Amino acid sequence: MIVILKKGVTRKQVENVEQKLASLGFKTHPIVGDYKTVIGAIGDKRNINKNLILSMEGVEEIVPIMLPYKLAGKELYKEPTTIDIGDGITIGGGHLAVMAGPCAIEGEDEFISVAKKVKQSGAVILRGGAFKPRSSPYSFQGLELEGLEIMAAAKKETGLKLVTEVVDTRDVETVDRFVDIIQIGARNMQNFRLLKEVGHCKKPVLLKRGLSATITEWLMAAEYIMSEGNEKVILCERGIRTFETATRNTLDLSAVPAVRDTSHLPIVVDPSHGTGHAKFVASMAKAAVAAGCDGLIIEVHQDPPNAMSDGEQSLTPKQFGDLMESLKKIAGVVGKSL
Amino acid sequence: MIVILKKGVTRKQVENVEQKLASLGFKTHPIVGDYKTVIGAIGDKRNINKNLILSMEGVEEIVPIMLPYKLAGKELYKEPTTIDIGDGITIGGGHLAVMAGPCAIEGEDEFISVAKKVKQSGAVILRGGAFKPRSSPYSFQGLELEGLEIMAAAKKETGLKLVTEVVDTRDVETVDRFVDIIQIGARNMQNFRLLKEVGHCKKPVLLKRGLSATITEWLMAAEYIMSEGNEKVILCERGIRTFETATRNTLDLSAVPAVRDTSHLPIVVDPSHGTGHAKFVASMAKAAVAAGCDGLIIEVHQDPPNAMSDGEQSLTPKQFGDLMESLKKIAGVVGKSL
Amino acid sequence: MIVILKKGVTRKQVENVEQKLASLGFKTHPIVGDYKTVIGAIGDKRNINKNLILSMEGVEEIVPIMLPYKLAGKELYKEPTTIDIGDGITIGGGHLAVMAGPCAIEGEDEFISVAKKVKQSGAVILRGGAFKPRSSPYSFQGLELEGLEIMAAAKKETGLKLVTEVVDTRDVETVDRFVDIIQIGARNMQNFRLLKEVGHCKKPVLLKRGLSATITEWLMAAEYIMSEGNEKVILCERGIRTFETATRNTLDLSAVPAVRDTSHLPIVVDPSHGTGHAKFVASMAKAAVAAGCDGLIIEVHQDPPNAMSDGEQSLTPKQFGDLMESLKKIAGVVGKSL
Amino acid sequence: MIVILKKGVTRKQVENVEQKLASLGFKTHPIVGDYKTVIGAIGDKRNINKNLILSMEGVEEIVPIMLPYKLAGKELYKEPTTIDIGDGITIGGGHLAVMAGPCAIEGEDEFISVAKKVKQSGAVILRGGAFKPRSSPYSFQGLELEGLEIMAAAKKETGLKLVTEVVDTRDVETVDRFVDIIQIGARNMQNFRLLKEVGHCKKPVLLKRGLSATITEWLMAAEYIMSEGNEKVILCERGIRTFETATRNTLDLSAVPAVRDTSHLPIVVDPSHGTGHAKFVASMAKAAVAAGCDGLIIEVHQDPPNAMSDGEQSLTPKQFGDLMESLKKIAGVVGKSL
Repeated sequence: MIVILKKGVTRKQVENVEQKLASLGFKTHPIVGDYKTVIGAIGDKRNINKNLILSMEGVEEIVPIMLPYKLAGKELYKEPTTIDIGDGITIGGGHLAVMAGPCAIEGEDEFISVAKKVKQSGAVILRGGAFKPRSSPYSFQGLELEGLEIMAAAKKETGLKLVTEVVDTRDVETVDRFVDIIQIGARNMQNFRLLKEVGHCKKPVLLKRGLSATITEWLMAAEYIMSEGNEKVILCERGIRTFETATRNTLDLSAVPAVRDTSHLPIVVDPSHGTGHAKFVASMAKAAVAAGCDGLIIEVHQDPPNAMSDGEQSLTPKQFGDLMESLKKIAGVVGKSL
Repeated sequence: MIVILKKGVTRKQVENVEQKLASLGFKTHPIVGDYKTVIGAIGDKRNINKNLILSMEGVEEIVPIMLPYKLAGKELYKEPTTIDIGDGITIGGGHLAVMAGPCAIEGEDEFISVAKKVKQSGAVILRGGAFKPRSSPYSFQGLELEGLEIMAAAKKETGLKLVTEVVDTRDVETVDRFVDIIQIGARNMQNFRLLKEVGHCKKPVLLKRGLSATITEWLMAAEYIMSEGNEKVILCERGIRTFETATRNTLDLSAVPAVRDTSHLPIVVDPSHGTGHAKFVASMAKAAVAAGCDGLIIEVHQDPPNAMSDGEQSLTPKQFGDLMESLKKIAGVVGKSL
Repeated sequence: MIVILKKGVTRKQVENVEQKLASLGFKTHPIVGDYKTVIGAIGDKRNINKNLILSMEGVEEIVPIMLPYKLAGKELYKEPTTIDIGDGITIGGGHLAVMAGPCAIEGEDEFISVAKKVKQSGAVILRGGAFKPRSSPYSFQGLELEGLEIMAAAKKETGLKLVTEVVDTRDVETVDRFVDIIQIGARNMQNFRLLKEVGHCKKPVLLKRGLSATITEWLMAAEYIMSEGNEKVILCERGIRTFETATRNTLDLSAVPAVRDTSHLPIVVDPSHGTGHAKFVASMAKAAVAAGCDGLIIEVHQDPPNAMSDGEQSLTPKQFGDLMESLKKIAGVVGKSL
Repeated sequence: MIVILKKGVTRKQVENVEQKLASLGFKTHPIVGDYKTVIGAIGDKRNINKNLILSMEGVEEIVPIMLPYKLAGKELYKEPTTIDIGDGITIGGGHLAVMAGPCAIEGEDEFISVAKKVKQSGAVILRGGAFKPRSSPYSFQGLELEGLEIMAAAKKETGLKLVTEVVDTRDVETVDRFVDIIQIGARNMQNFRLLKEVGHCKKPVLLKRGLSATITEWLMAAEYIMSEGNEKVILCERGIRTFETATRNTLDLSAVPAVRDTSHLPIVVDPSHGTGHAKFVASMAKAAVAAGCDGLIIEVHQDPPNAMSDGEQSLTPKQFGDLMESLKKIAGVVGKSL
């Protein structure tokens, strides 16, 4: 790290900082300018308590020169990671994986019907919410275990892989049993206990970006899961909170190249939550593929006007099918198959 | 609610919307203008699935006329709520309650020493973190149960009330046993399962505002706790995320009058997390009291440069003591005692 | 508009509001519910002083039912507008128009050299800054009039159309004489005097979105120009300010479908300022085309490391050429030619 | 500055960077770690084109160690600046200066009447808008020259100093002739030509913070004015744009201590625009004084419900008078007189 000292720092203060750095295992290189003094501190001490230095007299600022994440970054794993979901389904690599299905699971017949249709259009993973984190306690909270059983039935019927969200450490084991990918929702991106718990699972984890999470914080959340042993993390951009109100969130597609630049993990995009309006989903799904994402997760509902959750952002199976046709062509242009 | 219809809506579409509204229990009042048609829908249907209307043909927008929260709002409870912590300590009403202590509990002797000092300066509640939600998995995660036991010892020694954060549904029962106020941290403000779990407790809950939570979402989080039976919620403003980087967060003091305007719940302010720098804490603590808050929660550490967490935003016991002197005077001006 | 009255409003207060509305030319329709009373006010009074109602006793809130912009919206002009730049170059309609060139004009030879190269790759409009709004007074401020003359020379040499920014009302006449499209930069999006001044020109105006402007405010800025008589406004999304720091701004591509949804004006995207890093430009340019934009504006510099402004976000002519090849294919998929 | 090199940088690349730095006048100090190499570059080169280094091969990032502003910072002027408005009125130092008056000047009688009342309550500077930057072209745009003449009449009558906004470079000379403090509005904070123009005036400038301006950008805007010769800049915090909608803007009171920490310029606060609602103004005005600001600017209107602009955030003269009583007491506590 680089320690920038205050103008007018005393010789004694510089020495104290150097000694403290040495005691923490750094080699120090002071650079004395006419105007300011800085100390270069060399050593792989990524997770040191910065405060130990920052609070010393004469210290103005600390500039880290290493990224705070190690497993999620490109230092150890230089090549993009491909995550195997089984039966030839992968996320990352040259294939574009599409996950689709309703926001919430409402009943078995409807769910299986949608599942068949999205499969027909080319989706390989079925999404559906059994445990729903809703902003009002009075809204439908999901079918819970019954929802998971319906998902299992749909899988049996269609062969689609399953992804669903888990919202409580106490449910991780159960969810892990039923699905192929465990989802951590945006509101739980920094629910560190939940991250650790899914870090003990063997199933891949779809980690949604928090509403106001920086890319660094998002990768640190991935690091939480990976440092517990589960390195199969799929990142999911789903929109961040800004001042704009024409869309429910602002879908940050530049996160796709920005994540690629610093991490080996695959990244998928959720244009449904990212925009909040069905009428904007197709444009943003196409844009996401053109930007180079590894997959999409799209809400599809048999009858959006009567959906129990998020109907305003759900496509009909027909709209989804049409969209998939365009996506195939754009995928081809950017060197991916769908 | 008000249903705004699209320009050029057909007579048949208007009728369909009216019928749907009637089937949901509303009385409808269509208003046909030269330019647009709107339907006034009257009835106390706060938690209806808006999508049922929003997705109908011809509907442009829905404008709710009732707030989404009921227990947290002023409809049922018009007077400001005062929460009794026991032994004459209250939050809300004419008294300004100050909570103080270190970010994380690091050891018994230091903790008790700080406790004695903050008590001497006028704090009535002791804060300390036993379960620490840290953005890096490699940072100190707290002493957990041992931390709670140290808190209990400090309470025995000083008589101060205790507040600490809970981060996992599985720990709620244990934390509830040890402390007087259960804290929900900013990152868990929409961890709905955790909210429900503390909603089953009898102890007051200190609910921190999420980093990107609107005041409405914050009150909906309070509603989650209250709707489970625990109406003793204390709101805590601790800074929101903006583009500004000179401060760790942007402390939104206007939330104090804005919450007062719409809710009966007491509100306290955390200038330590709100600014992230010890040098800004005193100014913002004074400002918070002048703005009319019901209390403060301030990080105080025996030796900030060597704190294991958040040292850069911690006051020394001496700085805290000096600050309390100023706060007493400002409290007097705004009609509160400290 | 809809006037929502406070709970407990008196009969007299309701009457006062109704009378005031009538005096302003509205027909009123009160709807009295058990819980709240609202008044529907009908009449095309888009630009009324809302405060006249909002400040009356008993009034809680006003909900407009008409958009605040008229010329920029779809009410009068239902079909997408195509703007003619001359010589067969259009913006809007089925063609994708690409504008390219260096951030700042630094010298004639380099500028003409870049101009030739971007033309060869398919750009039809040449960009270049003569008046540079720089955040530091000590940075290069542009060649001003000399820059405009260099632009004219490049146009003569290549036949490319010209776009450049104007930053002062006193320069509008001069800039208007030299270029084909007058640019209003993000920092001047609400410099209303400048908007009015270019509203008196006959040349099309490229209106960049402000760093923290909502889509509604952006369209109101367009309305300023249009209401002065110049209806040839081209909107340009160039990134908004958020908390994310991995990119210079957050390019809001969902603005493309969102603008389409409410306005007839064409919209182009600036992936250079939108990301701030050359390495992210190609991904976002492709995404913008897939999202359905009408054009792009891209910074291209002969020698980015030695650029006097914005070198870190500039492509080389070679990188630009390669990008254009991909863009042609994606344009084809979304039904546009390039 | 510190130049951080990419992992795996070659010896040749390091040498190239060193040579380039030397050619720019820096003394270089390379520090080679096991993991990364950094180069310390020493020399007072505040306004170098960073891109020259940033775009070189092997360079990852540049960390400046000097602030980008010099005149606005504390390097040259260590002591807080007090700005003399004449006749014993100062901004900065131990006195709290209050500016008050209506948003827009609507007519002479009303304006003089308000002026007398705010003077009686203790205001020393009269505010009023003659040139109004309104977000809609159809809203009242101000009385312009006639407004300035009314201001002059009010000054003659009451002896109050005057502050008004200028929005066009062409009006600076005129405004300068009439008023005692020239205001640059939030939307023009980066209208660099306007900044330069008022930099040529002798009158103090009240520089409002832009809606999405960082504190650094705000001080750079001050630097623009100061570098032209006018060092009498008064900063004005007036709320920033965030996702919160309960208030019109989020008043960032932590800007008060943050500006103090890095600049010698005085800072005043505008709780009227900062909140947008009259009901929140008193709380935030008191908080601003407690936070240590040097003054306030508050909208006061004879008849807020009939104001032509911003009535919803204006106090009545009576409310203003009551507020001033509280402010005097809080000013006393924080060591200021009012």
